[in-house]
Amino acid sequence: MKSDKTFLVAGGDLRQAFVAGHLAREYTVYALGFDNDVELDDRVIPIESVCELGGPPDYIVFPIPASNDSEHVNMPLSHKHTRLQDVLEAASPDTVIFAGKAGKSLAAMCHLQGLELIDYMEREELAVLNAVPTAEGAIQIAMEEMPTTLYGQKCLITGFGRISKALIRALSGLGMEVSVSARKYGDLAWIQVYGCKAVPIRELPSVVGQYDLVLNTVPAMLFDRSVLRAMKKGSLLIDLASKPGGVDFTMAKELGVKAIWALSLPGKVAPVTAGEIICNTIRNMIQERGSE
Amino acid sequence: MKSDKTFLVAGGDLRQAFVAGHLAREYTVYALGFDNDVELDDRVIPIESVCELGGPPDYIVFPIPASNDSEHVNMPLSHKHTRLQDVLEAASPDTVIFAGKAGKSLAAMCHLQGLELIDYMEREELAVLNAVPTAEGAIQIAMEEMPTTLYGQKCLITGFGRISKALIRALSGLGMEVSVSARKYGDLAWIQVYGCKAVPIRELPSVVGQYDLVLNTVPAMLFDRSVLRAMKKGSLLIDLASKPGGVDFTMAKELGVKAIWALSLPGKVAPVTAGEIICNTIRNMIQERGSE
Amino acid sequence: MKSDKTFLVAGGDLRQAFVAGHLAREYTVYALGFDNDVELDDRVIPIESVCELGGPPDYIVFPIPASNDSEHVNMPLSHKHTRLQDVLEAASPDTVIFAGKAGKSLAAMCHLQGLELIDYMEREELAVLNAVPTAEGAIQIAMEEMPTTLYGQKCLITGFGRISKALIRALSGLGMEVSVSARKYGDLAWIQVYGCKAVPIRELPSVVGQYDLVLNTVPAMLFDRSVLRAMKKGSLLIDLASKPGGVDFTMAKELGVKAIWALSLPGKVAPVTAGEIICNTIRNMIQERGSE
Amino acid sequence: MKSDKTFLVAGGDLRQAFVAGHLAREYTVYALGFDNDVELDDRVIPIESVCELGGPPDYIVFPIPASNDSEHVNMPLSHKHTRLQDVLEAASPDTVIFAGKAGKSLAAMCHLQGLELIDYMEREELAVLNAVPTAEGAIQIAMEEMPTTLYGQKCLITGFGRISKALIRALSGLGMEVSVSARKYGDLAWIQVYGCKAVPIRELPSVVGQYDLVLNTVPAMLFDRSVLRAMKKGSLLIDLASKPGGVDFTMAKELGVKAIWALSLPGKVAPVTAGEIICNTIRNMIQERGSE
Repeated sequence: MKSDKTFLVAGGDLRQAFVAGHLAREYTVYALGFDNDVELDDRVIPIESVCELGGPPDYIVFPIPASNDSEHVNMPLSHKHTRLQDVLEAASPDTVIFAGKAGKSLAAMCHLQGLELIDYMEREELAVLNAVPTAEGAIQIAMEEMPTTLYGQKCLITGFGRISKALIRALSGLGMEVSVSARKYGDLAWIQVYGCKAVPIRELPSVVGQYDLVLNTVPAMLFDRSVLRAMKKGSLLIDLASKPGGVDFTMAKELGVKAIWALSLPGKVAPVTAGEIICNTIRNMIQERGSE
Repeated sequence: MKSDKTFLVAGGDLRQAFVAGHLAREYTVYALGFDNDVELDDRVIPIESVCELGGPPDYIVFPIPASNDSEHVNMPLSHKHTRLQDVLEAASPDTVIFAGKAGKSLAAMCHLQGLELIDYMEREELAVLNAVPTAEGAIQIAMEEMPTTLYGQKCLITGFGRISKALIRALSGLGMEVSVSARKYGDLAWIQVYGCKAVPIRELPSVVGQYDLVLNTVPAMLFDRSVLRAMKKGSLLIDLASKPGGVDFTMAKELGVKAIWALSLPGKVAPVTAGEIICNTIRNMIQERGSE
Repeated sequence: MKSDKTFLVAGGDLRQAFVAGHLAREYTVYALGFDNDVELDDRVIPIESVCELGGPPDYIVFPIPASNDSEHVNMPLSHKHTRLQDVLEAASPDTVIFAGKAGKSLAAMCHLQGLELIDYMEREELAVLNAVPTAEGAIQIAMEEMPTTLYGQKCLITGFGRISKALIRALSGLGMEVSVSARKYGDLAWIQVYGCKAVPIRELPSVVGQYDLVLNTVPAMLFDRSVLRAMKKGSLLIDLASKPGGVDFTMAKELGVKAIWALSLPGKVAPVTAGEIICNTIRNMIQERGSE
Repeated sequence: MKSDKTFLVAGGDLRQAFVAGHLAREYTVYALGFDNDVELDDRVIPIESVCELGGPPDYIVFPIPASNDSEHVNMPLSHKHTRLQDVLEAASPDTVIFAGKAGKSLAAMCHLQGLELIDYMEREELAVLNAVPTAEGAIQIAMEEMPTTLYGQKCLITGFGRISKALIRALSGLGMEVSVSARKYGDLAWIQVYGCKAVPIRELPSVVGQYDLVLNTVPAMLFDRSVLRAMKKGSLLIDLASKPGGVDFTMAKELGVKAIWALSLPGKVAPVTAGEIICNTIRNMIQERGSE
């Protein structure tokens, strides 16, 4: 049986199209900002303007980020433009706003209008689950770029956060010999428990030359001139750290080190999975609020 | 080349005998509290009293726990008795005291004498690395008690701390179908990332009947009458939680549920490894203090 | 719905008790040779003599081995004695006889009586599946005997047959560093594909000293004086090879090498699983014969 | 110290360029059929004609296949053309010829000239090791084509040969739920031992609809109209079987099933690894012949 709650999914890329589709199995879902050529689930009701809504929706879902210019909804799959404020005007005081990387302007608008705004990108479970498509995206890049199998090659991961843990599982599963560098003794212990070689980060410059593939997850300038110069000839460096990243790319180019900055992989390599993760996170948030 | 620092290893079980042996590769090590029939590394210098020390040692290592009665050193491998205070009198003001579960009385004595006391059981890396022998000890018990292979059976782990993570790796590696129950959404996400089925803890009573092996790591009364009654006939319950544990053992007996409380496994099933872990932790602490 | 076929399970250890229980879910099953204190499934009909059978059974299941003395049924769970010939007299010409390690005398009796005899121990799927409890039994022994965790230790497996493959999976899953020695280039390639270090067998004497645990699966005298002398002090040698085995145990004792000959592990460490495997193999044989 | 044996590597793609480079660490290696823009190891001596050889080489290495037209050497990295016969004229009666998929015409030429010809593609270790780059190539394609992560999806592999075993390891390592279909009971048992669900091949039509990814390794028409129609909407079918393959691609297109025939993956996705495998196989063959 369907819930009687209604959603408005406003804007976004393929991930949000899948979010709308998933939610539509359970709720009445309107979708704004998807041109006709975007394949939406049959149960989703596409609209061109909030005027087409029967009444205020219970939930509005904005994409990641909600806006690129602080004024309009981020709508890459539509040739139209819609203002954030116009969407919010469809809300009643009880409407809950979900957004990924909401941004200051949307936060301010919601605050002014007395609307509850929840940023799903700040949820732990979303960040954890997104580590898997990020790791697979990195593996796909490595497979495409390396003239060898991953199997049997030596790989170094810098940092021991979420992405690293997902990388460890996947790369070990493919038969790579994985080392991980970290700073804290507790992390170095975990790295061993996970079956990898633990490398204190201070040893990076002296050991980096042993690796065929290096994956950085630390958003700090670890890969400067001296480390880049120490890298093995023909090795590949993939930077997964969010801005400002951890690699001096200009220097890498100068030194002939193949370095790739791979950002926002979940939406690119696995939009369906990324949409599912967002959708499940929204479900958890609704359940926690006890509003069902 | 050997360091010129000296250690006094005072008391303890086989683990401490191995600690002494490991440290003796690098330092001058005296060992107090090991009868002649205990096999010590050739490089360790056994002594019967602190009077035999040439001078105050740089480090004194007490066992886990340091004392069972707040007065004497915990010396299960010796037929003699030595007071904590007598050992401390061999110290100079610069001597550093290491102990595992130091206890209030040793802490007070050190404080009075102005000695630095560090409890190695509170170190993150020791707790992490100890999760491995704990997991293997639990597996050994399960293998001994179950009339089936572990391979192919269904296992539930309650809690998602250090021991659980080590169990997940080892049990999945043996081909068990592993579920893990936890409370937080972030933990439930990690459980999936680690390839297991995530079970919200509130569902425990309704799902526990599906499992052949249940491993508890939560030190809270999860396995009360209602949960025990719901367990599968012939299944095995191993409680790895430190006191007060998580199982009503009286009730388990009454209901005919086979339940085992397995405590302090590292020292029992893998004393050499447990000794190495202590020794490496001591090394890390020395390195951090920059005293080398 | 139950089949109208009938089974007589005659003799055997706990495994056969479980075989009877499993088969009884689907067939009418009589069990001969289990004293009252043996817990049989409620659906199994215990009998004391073949006279109690209503008529000739469709299938008779003998244990492993069928007989220890070529005359009587192998009945370790009964204080009585029953002759093979007496059991066979309950058969009609259409009765099919299943046995594990049937032996020449049972084969001759069946031949004389014109009865079809199938040895389930010669079935590939039984041998394959039995490799798993054998591997777990070896792991249990290693855990009990070694003062270290298996995790992090170095292990050498000699031979690359069924048991080795099951060992590789389980030991790698527990975090051991596994090497496997074999003779053929194709096998050495597979060993690498399975993530292990491949060691040509001719290098055994020169490399054996590196390993903490050595598991032999080759029924040929590989571990003679010279190899035993080269083993690491304190290491453990487990011989899983069927007779004549692969270890000179007298010499091992003389040299102080801890060596254990572990035979028939499935029935000892996992009788329920071993029973299931026998039962499933019998099912496959029946299905292949198209007699259902 | 270098061996005094000489090699002529004649033609081939990047794999053979790497073969030449690897061999040149140990032997004197001449390479024919690589234009100037092909990066060869510094130790390799590029030649334009066999006349430039100092004398008959000890070994000649032809590529895979040796020839595409039964007359000329397969030389995709050269703008020139060289006849097989012209290369063979550089041989002495003691020269050994290595080729991958030698073909009848080369075999006949060698026979006439009394030259020993060994086809390295028929070596077990090469076929085994090639399964790894084949599996990784299939995974790369699946990652590129699927809008989901591989992690968490259901995969079916048909057939249980070398490639399947490499696929099982890699796909399980990435967190896929892997089923494998085979015909023989022994294989179905192994599939379970390797941690997968075993599906008798006769059940293919009824179960295929459950899978997101299907990988065929059987060179027989398994995926005909009826099976293709039963596939899950949006699923991906990758055919890894050599000619004639196992998929009716015309029908797949008609039914809207995304099907990809992926052949000769090792040379495409991992030429360096493929070259190493060829090189190691050649080394093994030389060692077996005792000619070193």
